[in-house]
Order: sequence, then structure tokens, then C-alpha cells
Amino acid sequence: MTTSTRAQKLALGKLIFGRPLATEELGEQAISNVVGLAVFASDALSSTAYATEEILVVLVAAGAASFNLSIPIAFAIALLLVIVTLSYRQTIHAYPNGGGAYIVSKTNFGPLAAQVAGAALLTDYVLTVAVSISSGVAQIASGIPGLQDYRIEIALLVIFVMTIINLRGVKESGRVFAVPTYFFLVMAFLLLGVALFQYLTGHLVPVKNVQDAIVPGTEALTGFLILRAFSSGCTALTGVEAISNGIPAFKEPKSNNAATTLTWMSGILITLFLGLTLLAHQVQAAPSTSETVISQVARAIYGDNSLMYFLMLSGTSLILLMAANTSYADFPRLAALQAADGFLPRQLGIKGSRLVFKWGIIVLGALASVLVVFFRADTTALIPLYAIGVFLSFTMSQSGMVVHNWRRRQQNPPLIKEMPVTTGKATHITGEHQMLPVYEYNPHWKREITISGLGAAVTGVVMFVFVITKFAEGAWFVTLLIPCMVFVFYRVHRHYTNVALRLKLNGRRPTHRIGKVKRILLVDSIHLGTLAMVDYAKSLGESWEAIHIAIDPDNTEKVLQRWEQYVRRGNPDIPNLEIIASPFRQLVKPLKEKVEFELELAGEGYVNVIMGHLVMDSYWEQALHQNSQITLDLMLQEIPHVVVTKVPYQIHNADDVPHGTPPPPTTAALPAN
Amino acid sequence: MTTSTRAQKLALGKLIFGRPLATEELGEQAISNVVGLAVFASDALSSTAYATEEILVVLVAAGAASFNLSIPIAFAIALLLVIVTLSYRQTIHAYPNGGGAYIVSKTNFGPLAAQVAGAALLTDYVLTVAVSISSGVAQIASGIPGLQDYRIEIALLVIFVMTIINLRGVKESGRVFAVPTYFFLVMAFLLLGVALFQYLTGHLVPVKNVQDAIVPGTEALTGFLILRAFSSGCTALTGVEAISNGIPAFKEPKSNNAATTLTWMSGILITLFLGLTLLAHQVQAAPSTSETVISQVARAIYGDNSLMYFLMLSGTSLILLMAANTSYADFPRLAALQAADGFLPRQLGIKGSRLVFKWGIIVLGALASVLVVFFRADTTALIPLYAIGVFLSFTMSQSGMVVHNWRRRQQNPPLIKEMPVTTGKATHITGEHQMLPVYEYNPHWKREITISGLGAAVTGVVMFVFVITKFAEGAWFVTLLIPCMVFVFYRVHRHYTNVALRLKLNGRRPTHRIGKVKRILLVDSIHLGTLAMVDYAKSLGESWEAIHIAIDPDNTEKVLQRWEQYVRRGNPDIPNLEIIASPFRQLVKPLKEKVEFELELAGEGYVNVIMGHLVMDSYWEQALHQNSQITLDLMLQEIPHVVVTKVPYQIHNADDVPHGTPPPPTTAALPAN
Repeated sequence: MTTSTRAQKLALGKLIFGRPLATEELGEQAISNVVGLAVFASDALSSTAYATEEILVVLVAAGAASFNLSIPIAFAIALLLVIVTLSYRQTIHAYPNGGGAYIVSKTNFGPLAAQVAGAALLTDYVLTVAVSISSGVAQIASGIPGLQDYRIEIALLVIFVMTIINLRGVKESGRVFAVPTYFFLVMAFLLLGVALFQYLTGHLVPVKNVQDAIVPGTEALTGFLILRAFSSGCTALTGVEAISNGIPAFKEPKSNNAATTLTWMSGILITLFLGLTLLAHQVQAAPSTSETVISQVARAIYGDNSLMYFLMLSGTSLILLMAANTSYADFPRLAALQAADGFLPRQLGIKGSRLVFKWGIIVLGALASVLVVFFRADTTALIPLYAIGVFLSFTMSQSGMVVHNWRRRQQNPPLIKEMPVTTGKATHITGEHQMLPVYEYNPHWKREITISGLGAAVTGVVMFVFVITKFAEGAWFVTLLIPCMVFVFYRVHRHYTNVALRLKLNGRRPTHRIGKVKRILLVDSIHLGTLAMVDYAKSLGESWEAIHIAIDPDNTEKVLQRWEQYVRRGNPDIPNLEIIASPFRQLVKPLKEKVEFELELAGEGYVNVIMGHLVMDSYWEQALHQNSQITLDLMLQEIPHVVVTKVPYQIHNADDVPHGTPPPPTTAALPAN
Repeated sequence: MTTSTRAQKLALGKLIFGRPLATEELGEQAISNVVGLAVFASDALSSTAYATEEILVVLVAAGAASFNLSIPIAFAIALLLVIVTLSYRQTIHAYPNGGGAYIVSKTNFGPLAAQVAGAALLTDYVLTVAVSISSGVAQIASGIPGLQDYRIEIALLVIFVMTIINLRGVKESGRVFAVPTYFFLVMAFLLLGVALFQYLTGHLVPVKNVQDAIVPGTEALTGFLILRAFSSGCTALTGVEAISNGIPAFKEPKSNNAATTLTWMSGILITLFLGLTLLAHQVQAAPSTSETVISQVARAIYGDNSLMYFLMLSGTSLILLMAANTSYADFPRLAALQAADGFLPRQLGIKGSRLVFKWGIIVLGALASVLVVFFRADTTALIPLYAIGVFLSFTMSQSGMVVHNWRRRQQNPPLIKEMPVTTGKATHITGEHQMLPVYEYNPHWKREITISGLGAAVTGVVMFVFVITKFAEGAWFVTLLIPCMVFVFYRVHRHYTNVALRLKLNGRRPTHRIGKVKRILLVDSIHLGTLAMVDYAKSLGESWEAIHIAIDPDNTEKVLQRWEQYVRRGNPDIPNLEIIASPFRQLVKPLKEKVEFELELAGEGYVNVIMGHLVMDSYWEQALHQNSQITLDLMLQEIPHVVVTKVPYQIHNADDVPHGTPPPPTTAALPAN
């Protein structure tokens, strides 16, 4: 690559991702409560856009009359939300450095529970992106029916853009997302206000001309059906935990700011969810395959194709599309925590030049895109997979808080058994363990245990209701997936532990191996790159030999002749080219045998295989030359005490002066080819 | 990887792909005419399974009465086939080493024409696989309606199995494919015979109960519609050229054997195609979306669900599935020719351990799978893309033969201008050009030019008819694709030419660069792998230095302390660890600056960067450690005179004794960590 194209690439990178940030700039990225609400609450608030609809989609099987039941179901969900909110306020104060289900499970139950919570949350974050964006695109397509056929493509585009924005860093993305969140809030409360006014003045009328409405069924209104509707509606609670994961992103005092934001968020969420459910009932909205309930409500209030209708729909679409951003904040952060504990690949814990965990962001974007394609951007198809993860993590987090406060019941509590804690580095690698901090006495421990215990109990029950009522529709998949993920996490962890053990120096001293180094040049054909490799070998000031593996008899003849002609040129210091037979046209096996033979001769020494490497300007050009090097590398790296050296020879496309100069008059005797 | 698992993998490889074959075994793989007919004619013969149906699918738009026209259209196509066969017999004799359109175009028109023919043929081979397998699966699904929903999956499975079979080599695949080809021929002629008997005895009755028949349209029977039906029927000719590409696979005398096989093939093809078209007309078969015409004909003759009906359908399905094999013989062979000429990646020209061009086989399988998924295994949807490539190559090949025989009109022809010929190696790489052979006088040149010219003219006209009549349905895509492919071929060629030029030794002598080698150890952290790297550095017997890039201040502190503790241990011969600052947590940039600085100091010398490399047992484990090495390698390889050495340290999962031994009593003073 020439210097100018590299500079252009760098400039493009900066334009898209922003300038690199120094490690010290980390603190500056803290966000205010107003921005925090936008960043962390958009998921929770946006679920009002589909929660009511998902209740009705279930109830419609028992006929339109059963829609009445949506009201008591919504109130039950609101009550559940109040309990969870009270419980999570406690968590935020108890874990000021971030009290997601992962940390709470880990410190109170240990690593296995932490990995279960981690698997549940990661699954859920991916689904949040897929569900929110699918629903957002459905809102857009309700307003502009011409887009119905392009829902998948639009959803994929949105995920792509969102991934890029998040790769720029959390502060910028906070700003970007504040506007749509507040725009939605204004529009939603305006809608409820206008509707209330119309209701009081007797002008509230049912919605007309609903296209593709689902035909009401004639199923009996069983308790099971009601539970299914209730569990569908519980998707309204998804996203409530986001703030407790994100406490460190807030300004000081972090816990107070985060708790305040949580309370505001829940209040707004309950108001909107109840308001919209009541309103949907009043205007007799009915689930349809091509128009969302929000769209029907807005049409009933503002009239078809009115400006306000489109503004309301835009606001809903925007917050839904932006809600996915909560996951873009949380998924990479959780993955980094798990990576630091050695349960996920370390790459997920590396902050890029913009101080974000770029691999986490990229992985999230990729997985969500797969879900969108697989479920054809259909919210109702995705719902059965959703919310299991959230409610599992709710349950684990709140039971963890019960344990936490139980430990804080005494004024001088005993020391808890030794346990690794997260220090931002993988503790199992360094082998450092720390004691858990001595638990401070909590005078309110009884009250707090009651609240957390109640929260844990109800969310646990809801989770089981969800799994049972949605099992056949897709919940089985998540029920299988989470244990599988935990298994993989432990495999990764076992690997890192094993490697750490085998690399560990403590108390063990390696056998030192100091000996001769046998140098072997691997000669493929004779060209300027080969001469560069020979020059390097000569520069080593030590003896070396050169071999050629005869995979093609005709070529071998030529290589041998050219070695004499261009490389040795009668110089006795340069070795003969040793030819190694290969009747099956294999490169790897004969080289392996040669290297193993030399290694035996070397005793306590090493074999250093020196290869030429043609370096091209671009990937596609490089791919045109990568015939055998990867295979050779894979073989050689498996033999202990064999060291591989690559002598590069760069080939550029630009019409610059080729390496080497024309022969000077004194060397005109060089034979022509 | 442990030795036993590697041995198991090798054994599995042998079981699937067969034992490796030595280069000398190449000759043994020649095939008899009987096997040759099965290998190379299955494509041509199998097209009788859909050609008649595709004619009817077009004619149905003008009402069922227009089906009468299928008879004259079929006779026109049969006449076309006679002309092409006579013409190709000449080609086979003129090019005994293989006279595909690529070679004929190249030797008579030059490289551009050759690449156009190459692009046309490669496109066509991929389509042959997709069309034949889609049609074959449609036949199966006609007989077993329960499989209708799994057509794509079955087609993909068949492609996969066929790819594996072909990776074993041509002789085995010839044997495998001989049985179904002859089974089909027996079944097809039996069907025609029984039908003739029924006709003569007055028992031939129309087919009943055709499901999902396409409703006849009311379009006017225009000339354009007739031309569309004709061009659809011309798919019967696809595959006729296969033998001329495959002459070297035949036994000696290759040309005579190949020409005989071609004549037999064409005779059988004409008989079957005309017979089936007449029969379809007699039994009033009508195109349907769920039942093929062959299935209808067989039902009419043998009765619903009779054994003979299923045998006929099996034969047709089998030969269609196997027809794709023609492409598996030709695609890799052509791609290897183009690779040898430097227009396709060299990898396509490398024969694997089973003497087959494995990359060509794999690429073909992959592309055909994509087409099957994209067109949902629907033959009629694929037809508009098909046959353009074949007819383009027919036209080019036969016009090439006109030029060829024009050059042979004189008894002592002049020498043609210097021109590269294929020698199995890329001539532009070695720079060797050969003279074209002096053309022998051909006493029959007038007659041969007439036949080839007529063939070129009619196939050229058919190609234009095809492009025009099918343009909107998909022919536009191939019309764009072929020029794009030729462009890419030339880009690849320009690249190889450029590289060859820059590596060329002829008449140029490189500036020799002999100087000191500065050795730099890159230290990431201190573990047993690091000590192994230091041991290697000590073994070099030369001075070296060690650097650490401070991407994490806490870690740097520790690395520095452990370097003193475990590596230097007070030994003044071991250098201090030099710390290189990196405020933006970058690895690449600080290392680059360091290396460039040292390179400047080195003058005419080299910088040798020595890195440790942890080698894991499996790919997934390796991926858990590949944090930065790839990026570092990419950066370092671009700097001339910088040589990278990797010191491997193998980590195995098996519970063997870890490397290094416990500290002997004398070193008990080694400080604990």
C-alpha cells in the first residue's frame, strides 16, 4: 500500500469513527441524567410501542370481546413494574460501580450463576436489537405501505448505521439518541392528552378502515390464554435493567443520578403503557398484519394521513430504532466483563481507539442482523424468544440482592470465603485472588430483603409462565440456548485457565535450551525476492543451507540451473541447492521430514526455516499468491524448537522504479536468461 | 493436535477422497468410450428431460392449440444439432489435445477472444449444475409430491455429495456415473418403444389428472413467441461441446474415440428429443407447476403409480442429477487452463493429492449452490440465464475453426506472428514465448470452412435470438456478467504480469544489501513462552534487545518487574527491557516507529523482529489468542528489510507433563511470585 492511500484510509477512519481518544479521556465521557434517560431508557419506553399490541394478538384468538381483558392485564404488568423498580433502586445503591445481573450474581452466588445471568443477558440484548428494529420498521411501514416489501432490508440498514454510530463512542451516541427519545415522549404524551380531551368532550371515535385485521378466533377464553397474553405484555418490562448496568456512565454522584433516572423512567413507562392500552381499547384497535396498534390509535385521534399522525408514527419509529441502542451500550460492556473473567474471548475486552469495546459492538450488530433475516423482521415471531432472558436475569439479580442484604444483617459480619473479584483483568490468568470486602451493616436489611425477595419471586413466576405459555412458539430455543452458552463460556474459561497454568512461572523453572541454530532457506523459484532472501541469509554471518522441494520435475531442473546462474555464480561460500524429492507433489510432508531430521541433529539447538514472502498492495492481490504458505506455517508451528523467519519482498503497483538497478558495465558478463 | 487425532483425520480423508495418487498415475486415468459417453454426454442427453417442457411453457401463453408448433420447432432444433455435431467433429480432429472454445478461440483469435469464451463457458458450467439438479429434483418431486417443499434442500445435498465424489478423481466418478446414464437410456428407449407399440395398436391415450397445470393464455401466436419457444428448446443443445473439451481424458487414439462418442451422443440425443416431443404432443401433456412433462408422458404410457412409471422417473432424475457431473469435469479443467495463462488465480491450476483440480471443483459446487438457493431450485427461472454462454462459445469456437482452416489452405503457409501458447505453465510468468506450429495443408479446407462457417452463423443467430427474447427475464444478467468476468480476468492477468516483471532477473542485477542484523524481541508479558523466546535469542550468539509496548500502565509495571525477576536475574549479558510509550493503547504505531528508527540506524542492514507465538491444539483455541499478531504482521511486512521471526510455544490440552521442570534444589532461591 502506498503512503498516500494509507493516509486516505486513516482520514476516512477518523471521519467515520472520530479521532482516537487517549486513555485519560475516559472520565470525560460521563453523561448527564437527561442524556442518560435517552441512552438507557429508550429500550424500556419503546416497548410501549408493541406491548399492548402483543397482548391483543393473543387475546384475538378468543374473539374481540376478550379485548376487555387487556385492561386488567396491563394493570397487573404495571404493578410488576413498580416492584421491579423499587427492587432495582436498591441494587443501584448497593452496586455503585454497576449492578447488572452479572455482577450481582457473581458476587453473591459465584461464577456459575454469573455465567447463567451473562448468557441470559447477552441473548436478551441481541433480541432487543432485533425486536426493536423490527417493530420500528413495522411502524414506518404502517404509515408508508409501499415499504412493506422492504422491511428486512430497511432493518438491516438501520442495524448497520447504528453499529457505526456506536463505534464512535458513548457520548456522541448519547447525544444522537437524546433527540428522538424526547421527541417520542412529547408526541406520546400529546397523543394521550388530546385523546383525554376528546374523551371528555365526547369526540373520541373508534378507528376505521383497519386493513388486514386478524380475524377473531373462537377459542375458549382459558386461563392459559390469559397467561399467554400476560406474558406477551410483560415485554413492556424489557429494558428496565439497563440503567443498573450503566451506572458508571453517569455523572457523580453516580448511584443517586442513576436511581433518579430509573424512577423517572418507570413512572413514564407505566403512564404510557397504561394510557396506550386504555386508549387502544377505547378506539377499538385490533391487531393487523400490516398496521400497528399505535398507528391505529394515532389515526383514530388525529385522522388518516394527518400531519400529527405521521409525527406520532415517526416518533414511535425513531424511539424503537434508537431503543436498540441500549443494547449497544450494554452488550459490549457485559461481554467485556465476561472476557475479563476469562469466559469470553479476550478480544471482547479490548477498547479500541475510540474507547469503546469495538468487537462487542460488531458481534452484536452481526447477530441481530442474522435474527432479522431469519425471522423476516417480524416482531410477533421474535416475541416468544424475547423476555425469557430479561426475566431470568431479573430473578437472579434480585435473589442475589436478598443474599447481599442477608450478609449485611450483622454489625460485624464474618469474612466470606476467598473468592475472585473482577479487577478489569482476568484474575485466573494472573492467579491473584482478593478477599471480598467486609460487608457493611445495613440497618434496613429486613425491608430491603422483603422488596428484593418479592421482586425475585414474581419475576421468577413470570419467567416460568413465559417459558410454559410460549414454549412451542420458540421459547424452547432460548431454554436450550442459555445452557449451551454457559457450556461454551466454561470451555473458553477452561482453555484460558489451562494456558495460564502451562505458561505460569511461579515456583517452576523451565529447562533452558541453548544450542546451535540450523538455518534452512526454503527456495521455491529464483527471482528478485529469492535474491533478497539470500542477501538476508548472507547478512546473518552464519552458515546456512538452501533446499527446494521438487513438486514439479520440470520446474526443479530450472530452479537448480537458475540457482547456479543467479545465486551461486561460482561463489563457493554459497551452498548448493539441496533438492528434496516429492513424488506426490506435496510440500508439507517432505519439509516436515527434513526439519525433523535436522532437529534431531541439532541436539539442544533450533532449526530456523527462512522463507521468502511476496507482499502485495491489496488483499485480493495477496490472495492470488497465498498458495502454500498458510499450510506450511500451520505444520511448522506445531514442531517445538522450529522457528520460522519470513523475509518480505514488497511488490507495488505504482509505476515506480523497480527494486534493483540495471546491470552496471562491470557485471555485463552476467549470463542472459 | 495429538498424533492420534491427526492420524484419524488422515484416515478419514483417505476414506472420503481416496488414497493420494503419484504424478505418474495420471495416464492410468484415461477412460473408454463407453465410460466417456456417460461422463461427457449425460449433460447433453439429460437436457431432453426439460427441453420439450420449456418449449410448451412458452407456447401455453398462446393457448393449448399452439402446442402443435412444438413439432416443427423440435425439428428445427434437431437440424441445428446436426450442423453443430458435424462442425465439432472437425474441431476434435484439429485439436487432439482438447479443442474447447477456449483453446480454439485463443489459438485463432488471441487472448481477448479466449477470455470471452472462458467467461461464457464458466458461466454456463455453473448454470448446468444448477439447472440439471433443479430439474432432477423436480422429477423426483413429481413422483413423490411430499418432497415438493424440500426441493432446495435436496438440491443442495446433491451438489454437496457430487462435489465430494469429484474430489476423489475422474476415473471413479466416470464409473459412478456410467450406471445412471445407461439406466436412463434403457428406460427412455423402452418408453418410446412401448409408446410406439401402443400408438400402432391404437392404445395410446391422453394423460389424465394433471395437477397445477398452467392455464392456457390468449396471447396472439406471434413470431416473437415462436422464437422464444425455439430458444427455450435450444437448451437441448447444451452439453454438446463437452466432449471436445475432454478429448485428453479418452483412450488413444483420442481424437477418433472422442469423435465417435460425439456422433453416438448426438444421434441418441436427436432420437430422444424428437421422440419425447412427439409423444408429449400425442398424450396431450401440458406444462404444470408441480408435475414435469416427462412424468405426464410416463403416466400416460405406463399408468399412474406403476412400477415402470417410477423406474422411468428415477432414470430421468438420476441422469439429470448426474448430468451436472459434466461440469465437474469441465469447469475445473477450463479454470486450470485460464489459471495457467494467468487470467485466474494460480490456486485453480494446482492438482491436489487425488490429481484433480480441487479448488475448481469446490468453487463450482459453491457457485451452483448459491444459484439453487437464489432461484429456489426452479428450472424455468434459471433457463433465461442458461444457453447464452453455450451458444456464445459455439459461435466463437466454430468461427475459430474457419480461421484455422483458412490458414491451412496453402501447402506452404507463412509463419504466423509470435504468440504465446499454453504449455501448462503460465507463459507470461516465465516470459517464454513459442512460435505457433506451422499449419499443415488441409486438402478439405473448403468443405470444412463451409461446415464451420454455417455452424458459426446459425449458432450466432440463435444466441442473438436468445438474448433478445429472454432479455427481460434474466438474459440481461449474463449479458452484463460476461464482460465483467473478462474485466476481472484481465485485472488478474495484469497483476501476475506486473509481479513477474518486478521479480524478473533477466538482464537486471539487484543491488545487493549485506549488512548487520539488528534483533529486537517483542515482549508482551513474561511467561514460559517468553523464556523460550529468550532462550532462542541467546542461542543466536549475537546481541539483541527486548522491548515492551506500554498499552496498559499497570501491566507494564508488572512486566518490567518480572523481566528482572525471571529473565535477567542479575545477568548483565541480558539487556534491560526497553519500555515504549503508547498513550492511545496502540500496539502497531509505536512498534512501527521503533522499527523504522532502528532501520535508519542499520544502514545497509536489516531489522529482525522476534515474537513469541502461542500455538494451540485447535482453531477455536487459536482464535482465542490471536489478538494482535495479524495486525502486527500486516504492518511489519510492508516495511522493506524488516524480517519477522516467530518463536512458537506449543500448548497442549492433554494432561501431559508441562514444559519445564520443577525447580531443582539449587535454584530454590528463585523468588516466588
